[in-house]
Amino acid sequence: MAVIQRTSQGIDQREIGRQQVFEAIRKSGRIARIDIARETQVSPATVTAITAELLTAGLIEEISPDSDRPGAKRGRPRVALKVRGDAHLIAGMKISDRSATVILVDFEGNTVGEYDHELPGPVMSPEEMVSLVRRALDGACRAAGRRLADISGVGLGLAGLIDAARNFVHWSPSLDQRNVELGLMLSDALPVPFFMDNDANLVAKAEQLFGQARNVSDFIVITIEQGVGMGIVIDSKIYRGERGCGAEFGHTKVQLDGALCRCGQRGCLEAYVGDYALLREANIRGSAQPEDDLSALHARAKAGDAMARSIFDRAGRMFAMGLANVINIFDPSLVILSGEQMTFDFLYSEEVLNRVKASVVQVDAPLPEIRVHKWGDLMWAKGAAACGMEGVSELTIRSLATNAA
Amino acid sequence: MAVIQRTSQGIDQREIGRQQVFEAIRKSGRIARIDIARETQVSPATVTAITAELLTAGLIEEISPDSDRPGAKRGRPRVALKVRGDAHLIAGMKISDRSATVILVDFEGNTVGEYDHELPGPVMSPEEMVSLVRRALDGACRAAGRRLADISGVGLGLAGLIDAARNFVHWSPSLDQRNVELGLMLSDALPVPFFMDNDANLVAKAEQLFGQARNVSDFIVITIEQGVGMGIVIDSKIYRGERGCGAEFGHTKVQLDGALCRCGQRGCLEAYVGDYALLREANIRGSAQPEDDLSALHARAKAGDAMARSIFDRAGRMFAMGLANVINIFDPSLVILSGEQMTFDFLYSEEVLNRVKASVVQVDAPLPEIRVHKWGDLMWAKGAAACGMEGVSELTIRSLATNAA
Repeated sequence: MAVIQRTSQGIDQREIGRQQVFEAIRKSGRIARIDIARETQVSPATVTAITAELLTAGLIEEISPDSDRPGAKRGRPRVALKVRGDAHLIAGMKISDRSATVILVDFEGNTVGEYDHELPGPVMSPEEMVSLVRRALDGACRAAGRRLADISGVGLGLAGLIDAARNFVHWSPSLDQRNVELGLMLSDALPVPFFMDNDANLVAKAEQLFGQARNVSDFIVITIEQGVGMGIVIDSKIYRGERGCGAEFGHTKVQLDGALCRCGQRGCLEAYVGDYALLREANIRGSAQPEDDLSALHARAKAGDAMARSIFDRAGRMFAMGLANVINIFDPSLVILSGEQMTFDFLYSEEVLNRVKASVVQVDAPLPEIRVHKWGDLMWAKGAAACGMEGVSELTIRSLATNAA
Repeated sequence: MAVIQRTSQGIDQREIGRQQVFEAIRKSGRIARIDIARETQVSPATVTAITAELLTAGLIEEISPDSDRPGAKRGRPRVALKVRGDAHLIAGMKISDRSATVILVDFEGNTVGEYDHELPGPVMSPEEMVSLVRRALDGACRAAGRRLADISGVGLGLAGLIDAARNFVHWSPSLDQRNVELGLMLSDALPVPFFMDNDANLVAKAEQLFGQARNVSDFIVITIEQGVGMGIVIDSKIYRGERGCGAEFGHTKVQLDGALCRCGQRGCLEAYVGDYALLREANIRGSAQPEDDLSALHARAKAGDAMARSIFDRAGRMFAMGLANVINIFDPSLVILSGEQMTFDFLYSEEVLNRVKASVVQVDAPLPEIRVHKWGDLMWAKGAAACGMEGVSELTIRSLATNAA
C-alpha cells in the first residue's frame, strides 16, 4: 500500500485525499475518475489509487457508462463511480418536545424506513433519553425488518447548545441537566457510533443536501419551533465557532434590559417570540383559566382580537429586527426560514419580511433572498441521517488509512 | 515551461500553487523548500519548479542556511527562501476625517517612509479625493526620496461600504456621493494599481500581520472612530459576505424604532455611540452655544456631571449589547477593540466589558478573550500597505502564469 506521509500538523495527506475523493463522488451522485481529479485538484494517478482502495473496501461501485446521456463524447466510454448504497445502513433521529422521529437510509441516502416514537413529556433525564433512543431505534429497525446490529451509525439531533465534535450537550431544553456527556452514555449503552449536532445545524445540512440550498455555498437557516435556532453555512461547511456551539440566534438581545428569558438573561429574542413568551403575554390579566394554547391565541389574533394581535405583532417586529441584524453581519445570499412552527405565519408574514428588508443596510446591490420552507420532523431526521452518513464515511475512511499504515 | 491545466471552473491549478507557495514564504519569513511542501500540501517537485519561477521573477531570494539555529539537524544545510524586499515598493493609505496617512513599505513589509497629509474637511467629492490621493502619494514619495513610478501598488482604506473586489464605494462618510467607481477614477488618473478596502478590514489585516491576532485564524476586530466598524476573519481570511461589504456592525439595531441614525434608519448602534449621537444628546436643551466638543463632554462626565455621564453610560450599555450579539452569533476566540477613538474609554471600560460577558450565552467553556488595542492612523495605513502587498503579489504571480501559458 502507498506510503503514508504525516505532515507537521500530524495530518495524513492520503486520508485527506480519500475524504475529498469520496466526498466528490457522494456529492455528484455519479462521476468519472478524470472529473474527480478536476474537482478535487488531486492528481489523476492518486485518484486512481484512492478509488481502487474505496472499491476494495466496498464503499463505492463502478456503474456502466451512461452512453446515451446528452453531450456524451464518442470514443471509449468513461466508467462512472457512485457510492454503494448497501455499504452501510444509517439512522437519523430528531428528538423534539413531542416525539423521537427516526429515518433509516442506505449509504446513498435512499429511505429504508421511518418511525415515530411519542414521548411521555418534553423534558427527561439523560438516562431516560438513552433509553428513549434505544427504544426508538429498536422500533425503527423492527418496522423496517432490520436489526440494530445492521446500523453503522446514528445521527442524532437535539435542540440546544451541542458540541458536535465531542457529542457533548452544554444545554438542551429536552434534558433536565446541563453539561451532559450524552455521547459517552449512548456509546456505553448501544453498540453503534453516534454523531450528534444541534437541530438547526441538521436542518442546514438537510437544506444543503436535499432542500432549498442545493449548490449554495453560503446561507443561513433560521428554524422556528418552541424557540428559534440558526444554522450558518460558510464555504459549504457548518460554521461552529470557537466553543463548538456558535451561531446562537434566539439569545441575541433585541431590547436593552428587556423581557426576562428562560435562560435567565433579559431582552433575548426568544423572550419575545418563543411559545412561552407569547403565552406569558396572553396571561397578563392573571385569569383563573390561564391561556396555554398557542393555536387558540393565534386564531383569536386572526379573528381580529386586538390584544392577541398586539402580542403577535410585537413578536414579528422583534423577529424582524433580530433577523436584519444577522443579515447585516453576514450578508448572506440566501436566508431560509424553516421549521414546523412555520404553521403560525406571524414570523414570516409579508409585513415582517418587508421590515427585515427595510432594516438591512441599503447598498446598490440586491438584498439577500429570504425563502420560507415549511417541513415536518421527518426532514429534521433526514438532516440527522446526513450527519450520520458523514460521520460513518469519515470513520470508515480513517480505518482504511489505519489498515494501510 | 510547465503545462497549464485549466480546470472545469477555469481555475489555473499552477497559479493556485504559485500563490500558496509565495504566501507560505511570506507568512513564515524564511522557510526551506521541504517545509513549504509540508505546509501547502503541494508536492516537493512542484514546489521546486514554482520557487525556481519565483526566483527568476525576482520575487523571492535564497538566504544562506541558518546553521546555528536551535535544533538544526546535522548534515547538508537546508537553503531557506524569503521574499525579496527590493522586489516592489508598496504604499498604504488611510483616509480619515482629518488626514490622509501614507506609509511606504518594501515587499517584505519594512517601512521605507511615512507621510501625513491634512485634509481641508472631512467630506469631499470623488474628484477631490482622486486629487487628494495623488498629492498624498507625491508627498510621501518626495519625503522618502522615491518617485511615484517606483510604486508597484497602493492599498487604500476608507470608512464605509466598500466592495473590495471591484474597488467600488457603495457609500463612505468621506465622499459626498454614493456608488462611486473610485477604483476606475484612480486608475485613470494615476499609473499604479489600487487595492481598496473598508478601513475596519484593513485593521483586521494589520492585527493579523503585525498586531494582536498573529497566529489566530478566527477573530473579530471592532474599530471605534467617528462610527464603529467591524472586520471578521474566518479561517485566516477576511469575511466579506455575498455583496462584498458584509460584516456591518454600526448599523445593526439595538432598539426597535429607536434613535434616528445618519443612515436614515432607526435604532442603529451608531445612533447611540457615534460622535454625532453623543453630541445630539448633549444638545437636548437647545442652548445658544451648541455643544460640539466631544472631549469637553467626556471631561465633564469624568468630573461627575450627571447628564454627561448618563450620555456615555447609555452609549456603553448599547455598545455592550451590540457586541454581545456579534459574539453570540460568531463565537470567536478573540475580539479586539481597536482604534484611535479608544482614547475615550467609555466603550471599553471594565463595566462595559463585564456587561458584554454577562450578555453572552453561558456554557461550560471559557468566554472569548476581549483585548483593547489603541493605535494611530499609521497602523491603519500599515493594514492598507498589507492589502497593497497582497494585491501586487497576486498581480505579479498572475503575470507569471500568463507568460508561462
